[in-house]
Amino acid sequence: MGAGPGDPGLLTMRGADALRQADVVVYDRLVSGEVLDLAPATAERVYAGKAPGQAAIDQDDINDLLVERAREGKRVVRLKGGDPFVFGRGGEEALACARAEVAFEVVPGVSSAVAAPAFAGIPVTHRGLAASVAIVTASGAGGQPVELRRVATAVDTLVVLMAAGRLAEVCRSLIEAGRPATDPAALVQWATTPKQRAVKATLAELPERAARAGVTAPATLVVGAVVNLSALLDWFEGDGRGEPLREGSPRPTHAEAPALRGAPALALTQTQPR
Amino acid sequence: MGAGPGDPGLLTMRGADALRQADVVVYDRLVSGEVLDLAPATAERVYAGKAPGQAAIDQDDINDLLVERAREGKRVVRLKGGDPFVFGRGGEEALACARAEVAFEVVPGVSSAVAAPAFAGIPVTHRGLAASVAIVTASGAGGQPVELRRVATAVDTLVVLMAAGRLAEVCRSLIEAGRPATDPAALVQWATTPKQRAVKATLAELPERAARAGVTAPATLVVGAVVNLSALLDWFEGDGRGEPLREGSPRPTHAEAPALRGAPALALTQTQPR
Repeated sequence: MGAGPGDPGLLTMRGADALRQADVVVYDRLVSGEVLDLAPATAERVYAGKAPGQAAIDQDDINDLLVERAREGKRVVRLKGGDPFVFGRGGEEALACARAEVAFEVVPGVSSAVAAPAFAGIPVTHRGLAASVAIVTASGAGGQPVELRRVATAVDTLVVLMAAGRLAEVCRSLIEAGRPATDPAALVQWATTPKQRAVKATLAELPERAARAGVTAPATLVVGAVVNLSALLDWFEGDGRGEPLREGSPRPTHAEAPALRGAPALALTQTQPR
Repeated sequence: MGAGPGDPGLLTMRGADALRQADVVVYDRLVSGEVLDLAPATAERVYAGKAPGQAAIDQDDINDLLVERAREGKRVVRLKGGDPFVFGRGGEEALACARAEVAFEVVPGVSSAVAAPAFAGIPVTHRGLAASVAIVTASGAGGQPVELRRVATAVDTLVVLMAAGRLAEVCRSLIEAGRPATDPAALVQWATTPKQRAVKATLAELPERAARAGVTAPATLVVGAVVNLSALLDWFEGDGRGEPLREGSPRPTHAEAPALRGAPALALTQTQPR
């Protein structure tokens, strides 16, 4: 099941029910404590994420654990950030269950691919600006530059998950593949949480700006004309007047939102869709 | 806010809270009655969808209504199927609020683009099969074939929302743009609800198969090697043995899932990613 992008309020009601009935919860990094706390105190909790400087649990070991606990008759919740089928390896774990004849259910979650931009005031589609969106990842075993090059100019909005660690490489690959260096781009760190910070710049300038602002992992990259909309729609972080991020300014929680107090006078930059 | 893909259990907890506090709910077609019922009985309910044979309310009129009710001091929930920023025109409505200096919050929802495939046993990404996914729509004002042609061969998995009405045209456009006619494809109708029905075929054969099976709107199209995984992962509709859809067979509700009783003996077709 997907835990959603970070804000515990973005967990689904079915997800909350499943957790409340769990005997075992196998969870990843980036799953919030508030979500995990929905499981009974007596439930077994297994951390399957990667600790800093340590290797993650092997995928085969996770698969074996899920099957083993299910065969003991336990209700097992496999809890992932975002959605389990959007670069969450949920398909591999579901296959392990299917092959072991272990019954399972899929509980989709709100994906960071859409929610991270949304919380930075960026709709991934918008009439006249973006009629297509692609989602790729900068992480994972090799070959990602190939994916980036293939998709670089094929869609209006491009979302790159787990982008912070390879940001310079990702932006360079996109530009080399024909994406305009002047395209608006945003990197959104800790999206949907009180720690959220977004940095916006042209695609060419974003890596340096992100480094200067100290915006690092976990972060989602968005590229495309829709990024310009955040000047008007930055309801979560901003004051609605398009002012730059202030150091040490309080971040609203989702519950404290909306933060948009007024619209800027400037007219929206109407970028032509390619 | 997004109501999610259909199953009321896939509403977010924040979405449920917002509805419970609503003075006004402006809702679309495809939003379930169970979700709408979360709003107080005293809340004003405005249907902004399209009735069969009638024109939808004009987008400008919806924008005006949202601003007008907000200015009366009311808490207005704009309730959309799926996610408001994934072809939901949420950006336009948020802009109308921003320009009118009406404070707003965005509540993302689980998008049908990911959940419809997931409920048909199809992960939109899967290691070795799909490292990229694009989302487009077959509906809306002209130019969609252009979007389809641009993206046809640029991603591993292609999701086309609102695909049923123009299915033959969409599949033909994709094939003409270079997508293999033999690519596995699925059309999922009423995804995540007890009425869900999926039909699977090659991209070339899908329109005829869908017509024969009577699978029509509302439906989501998925194209790519990941569709083959549904033979093993069809946990919601299927019996896990890859049997064809039976007429009149009972459909499990999400609460009654999991439906996968056992895995088929056949090995997964390992399609090479392009």
